Amino acid sequence: MAVRAAVAGASGYAGGELLRLLLTHPGVEIGALTGNSNAGQRLGALQPHLLPLADRVLEPTTPEALAGHDVVFLALPHGQSAAVAEQLGDEVLVIDMGADFRLEDAADWEAFYGSPHAGTWPYGLPELPGGRAALEGSKRVAVPGCYPTAVSLALFPAYAAGLAEAEAVVVAASGTSGAGKSPKPHLLGSEVMGSMAPYGVGGGHRHTPEMIQNLSAAAGERVTVSFTPTLAPMPRGILATCSAKAKPGVTAESVRAAYEKAYADEPFVRLLPEGQWPATASVYGSNAVQVQVAHDTAAGRIVVISAIDNLTKGTAGGAVQSMNIALGLDETTGLSTIGVAP
Amino acid sequence: MAVRAAVAGASGYAGGELLRLLLTHPGVEIGALTGNSNAGQRLGALQPHLLPLADRVLEPTTPEALAGHDVVFLALPHGQSAAVAEQLGDEVLVIDMGADFRLEDAADWEAFYGSPHAGTWPYGLPELPGGRAALEGSKRVAVPGCYPTAVSLALFPAYAAGLAEAEAVVVAASGTSGAGKSPKPHLLGSEVMGSMAPYGVGGGHRHTPEMIQNLSAAAGERVTVSFTPTLAPMPRGILATCSAKAKPGVTAESVRAAYEKAYADEPFVRLLPEGQWPATASVYGSNAVQVQVAHDTAAGRIVVISAIDNLTKGTAGGAVQSMNIALGLDETTGLSTIGVAP
Amino acid sequence: MAVRAAVAGASGYAGGELLRLLLTHPGVEIGALTGNSNAGQRLGALQPHLLPLADRVLEPTTPEALAGHDVVFLALPHGQSAAVAEQLGDEVLVIDMGADFRLEDAADWEAFYGSPHAGTWPYGLPELPGGRAALEGSKRVAVPGCYPTAVSLALFPAYAAGLAEAEAVVVAASGTSGAGKSPKPHLLGSEVMGSMAPYGVGGGHRHTPEMIQNLSAAAGERVTVSFTPTLAPMPRGILATCSAKAKPGVTAESVRAAYEKAYADEPFVRLLPEGQWPATASVYGSNAVQVQVAHDTAAGRIVVISAIDNLTKGTAGGAVQSMNIALGLDETTGLSTIGVAP
Amino acid sequence: MAVRAAVAGASGYAGGELLRLLLTHPGVEIGALTGNSNAGQRLGALQPHLLPLADRVLEPTTPEALAGHDVVFLALPHGQSAAVAEQLGDEVLVIDMGADFRLEDAADWEAFYGSPHAGTWPYGLPELPGGRAALEGSKRVAVPGCYPTAVSLALFPAYAAGLAEAEAVVVAASGTSGAGKSPKPHLLGSEVMGSMAPYGVGGGHRHTPEMIQNLSAAAGERVTVSFTPTLAPMPRGILATCSAKAKPGVTAESVRAAYEKAYADEPFVRLLPEGQWPATASVYGSNAVQVQVAHDTAAGRIVVISAIDNLTKGTAGGAVQSMNIALGLDETTGLSTIGVAP
Repeated sequence: MAVRAAVAGASGYAGGELLRLLLTHPGVEIGALTGNSNAGQRLGALQPHLLPLADRVLEPTTPEALAGHDVVFLALPHGQSAAVAEQLGDEVLVIDMGADFRLEDAADWEAFYGSPHAGTWPYGLPELPGGRAALEGSKRVAVPGCYPTAVSLALFPAYAAGLAEAEAVVVAASGTSGAGKSPKPHLLGSEVMGSMAPYGVGGGHRHTPEMIQNLSAAAGERVTVSFTPTLAPMPRGILATCSAKAKPGVTAESVRAAYEKAYADEPFVRLLPEGQWPATASVYGSNAVQVQVAHDTAAGRIVVISAIDNLTKGTAGGAVQSMNIALGLDETTGLSTIGVAP
Repeated sequence: MAVRAAVAGASGYAGGELLRLLLTHPGVEIGALTGNSNAGQRLGALQPHLLPLADRVLEPTTPEALAGHDVVFLALPHGQSAAVAEQLGDEVLVIDMGADFRLEDAADWEAFYGSPHAGTWPYGLPELPGGRAALEGSKRVAVPGCYPTAVSLALFPAYAAGLAEAEAVVVAASGTSGAGKSPKPHLLGSEVMGSMAPYGVGGGHRHTPEMIQNLSAAAGERVTVSFTPTLAPMPRGILATCSAKAKPGVTAESVRAAYEKAYADEPFVRLLPEGQWPATASVYGSNAVQVQVAHDTAAGRIVVISAIDNLTKGTAGGAVQSMNIALGLDETTGLSTIGVAP
Repeated sequence: MAVRAAVAGASGYAGGELLRLLLTHPGVEIGALTGNSNAGQRLGALQPHLLPLADRVLEPTTPEALAGHDVVFLALPHGQSAAVAEQLGDEVLVIDMGADFRLEDAADWEAFYGSPHAGTWPYGLPELPGGRAALEGSKRVAVPGCYPTAVSLALFPAYAAGLAEAEAVVVAASGTSGAGKSPKPHLLGSEVMGSMAPYGVGGGHRHTPEMIQNLSAAAGERVTVSFTPTLAPMPRGILATCSAKAKPGVTAESVRAAYEKAYADEPFVRLLPEGQWPATASVYGSNAVQVQVAHDTAAGRIVVISAIDNLTKGTAGGAVQSMNIALGLDETTGLSTIGVAP
Repeated sequence: MAVRAAVAGASGYAGGELLRLLLTHPGVEIGALTGNSNAGQRLGALQPHLLPLADRVLEPTTPEALAGHDVVFLALPHGQSAAVAEQLGDEVLVIDMGADFRLEDAADWEAFYGSPHAGTWPYGLPELPGGRAALEGSKRVAVPGCYPTAVSLALFPAYAAGLAEAEAVVVAASGTSGAGKSPKPHLLGSEVMGSMAPYGVGGGHRHTPEMIQNLSAAAGERVTVSFTPTLAPMPRGILATCSAKAKPGVTAESVRAAYEKAYADEPFVRLLPEGQWPATASVYGSNAVQVQVAHDTAAGRIVVISAIDNLTKGTAGGAVQSMNIALGLDETTGLSTIGVAP
């Protein structure tokens, strides 16, 4: 018997990707689809790639529209999820794809988002230590940010195994869909094609405290993260290049062993064979994570690179994976490790 | 009980896309994977997006490797399929994704391919008049070329309904995967990004006689096709812009009615609502075909535009669709109309 | 002694490209730069590639700002040029990069633009028959549209030589800069990368009557044009694939001879050697036009393909070329036939 | 009186970019153009964007072909320059765009290139301390690698000013032209479009010792560099994200002051206004370098980002700049700070 799922914010990129996945999920029936400025429009005009839903019409995001569902996904702008979630009742599984409930530290939230902290929900990255247990049976899930997903999966095994000093340096390239569907001049195709450009340099990106939270938990000490995001000329994908100084005695073998152990049984994370490096094209449209490690002995650093699809594992696929766990379904249901390439 | 399928030519783009589809086809078990120059290599190195098959090793393309399967897909260079097919026996379903068995006219074959004609197999475009019947129960299928798929589906309803003069003009843009995985200077990323360029102009492209064959059959008279293919800076997709002079008395309404009728019950072809135009991104990775029509009264022409994914509906998806029909499975098994976008 | 040039609309793509060219034009001194919504901003923030002008600040587009110049370029939205031009005086050379003064037929203007016709100025395509003479000494120039530039140069020699029937079919692919810098959802990088899509299909594109005007003048009879523009995933460039039925007796040799004759002495148009085809990358950032012809005997059509940079020869380069002629300078001053590739 | 310049290796990307620049250099006459596998071909077929040179034919790279020139540019594969240079005589200015003469330490050369060290020539990065003096009047120039150009200009001011600890971390994204024109599967457009992928991770890239050489010289102590290059889906451009731990007492103001001082009088390096970040599109086809700095106080790191065009400032433009200095011409002759954008 399928659960009935509503999607609030069905016209954006996160909502569209979620619907793409839910359409082939054997345990889900797609219920209400809501939007705000786009309410009343056919989904076929807004998400022309979702042919089976072309004739569905968006409703306004109201408690009435969202009532009567087993699962409600919130793909709303930051700061709007709490008010909607409150009206849904405790027995409904609410999965927030926004940032509102990710951070544990209210001061961090207020410093980076500038509004009162709404609270903290179980965090939807099951691969982290204790991650699955936190999600089982939960009625609330905070889906991680796309960059924190890529970076935490790249670096937490090194920290959990005590291999890395507590100062990480991360440079990540993201496809443009990570910046959303709201039209802004710097996101025009004419601007992004042929160009690489950074933003939020110097510690200002809102995903930074979330990375610090995850890596510090794994390390058992406060980890700093120097994070530089860059916008790459591609629609999807995140390539995260992460490094930290190796602790004394660390070897290439001990690094690799830590990652082999961490990911031996993970259905979505693949430590690549030595000599092969991640590429975002290989995980295009899939929930897979490609990871590879190196030990740069001359520079004394552990270098870890991960590739994800920012919309799938980085947002909507991660949301479905968490839903599966929360509902007691097989974690991989409706999700794929097969990329669409070339 | 799943049929067992072998893929000869598993390292190329067509073979890779086929495996992507077969991996999620509930009625197929993937058997032997063969290659020539790549025999002995792990598939993970050649098709890194197909994670579930990463540890499979390519065998050489021999009769022994291909024996013992219910279905054999041939994704081989032109001219090599006949020799392989002969050795497979009449009870095996052989699906040729190359050109060898597409053309009915031996003189056309020899003029465009320069070698003796190997024969003609049932043609794998079920949407054409009589197309399904030809495939049901067949043990041999010639999968159409990618351009002829897009162009035939765009224009045959106009010819079948007697609306268009027998002189078609087609300009099509293809993603670079249509040119294959063999490295050539003009296919380098540095060359193709930021560039549109034609090739095979003036009637020389090998897909031209195949289009003429399909449209002439629909029209009941010889149709000429002026075909210009262009290479577009994208990995996948074909956008075909097709037109023909309207016959006297044709109206926008009669054109639309012909297409509504032709595609009312087709699971993969979608005539878009008026005002919406096809885009290759909308069918990325899917077996869907988007079609839209216009009647340019000032120029006196019917203009039809279709968008497909050249690797899916244009090659591997079309092959699976035909396999389903030949085997008596539901035609849509293992195929999707949901694109991966943005 | 340099002429002093003002640019109204310096923040857009046409204005930016014009400034890029004027910066290296030895006979021009750059004067006032104006904008409307962007007035008061540094050019460095709006056009970060124009480093030498980074500290210039945009003024509002007023008669005062534009006064005191020898040349005024108008890169304004359609319909705004007439009012500005009137205030500039008859002795100032005014070069309109918008559509307002291109069309001779007021009815065409009104049908396609929906406003009263402002008039007709000398047309800035010197390669057309009589084109140079119309510009010499003129104080007003209407710069052609980007598509009409590519299409007219592709087809007028065939019409001028009486080789082609009066029904042309044109499919053109344009880079996204042709759609301007105003942010709209369908122009987002996430939407355009990886996608080809048509627009204005069926005769509705505003550049259609301009093509008809040019080709009809060359042919000496009314030529119809079936025009389909498509948006390609690249920032710049137009590839126009143009064809028309060959008149009786036409041969490949007579077609080539007509183009050789038409372009023997043209500094910016290059008929490529046989066997080589135009590519937009080859004219990136240059004022060059690449042209190639074919005679498809099976289809009975002359096929001509041209490649231009829509912002250079298609807009700002064409404007500078016309300015040179109008001012009596060498036509090629400040313009290049060297593309930036790869 | 123009100097006469030969280009050995005129068919590749570096050679093509050099010719693009030399064509508009007022002090240079282009002499012999040579190639090896492409000898005998028209340049128009190999470099179709260089229309003015289309009818030039490549000669084989022999001493006879290169004799009689004032300047010889070598754009040859690694290891081939020494033999050619020896035959040219001491009075000829030889500018090597390959790696052969960049490194001072023979052991570094042998470790990274696996062949005997050919020697060390004056290093063509005039912006480095003492850089110009080393080039004035020199008859030999080693043009820096593209990555070391971007990285050295990003970081040397911090090291020269004593602001940064001697452990740098660099992640750089390069356009595909940096990988050359020789066709390889992973450089196909189908593979690179839509994908970001690293290579040479962990200290193995050959440009690493060159960066260390430059930064150590500026710092006055041995600097380690953790360098990760990535291939980005664009033809040109390098975006280098560089960071190092700030020394005690460093402030945002002291960092900015060091860069303002370093680049106050540099014609090609632009420290952007605060709040504006480099983008590779802004320097497309230009010799400009965009630099911006940040002080991440939470992570305790100085972050510096630079953008160059890998083929221009990173290769051919740097070569021309050095030639100008060596010949006593104005350093900026024939070079531009104006990018081709969008």
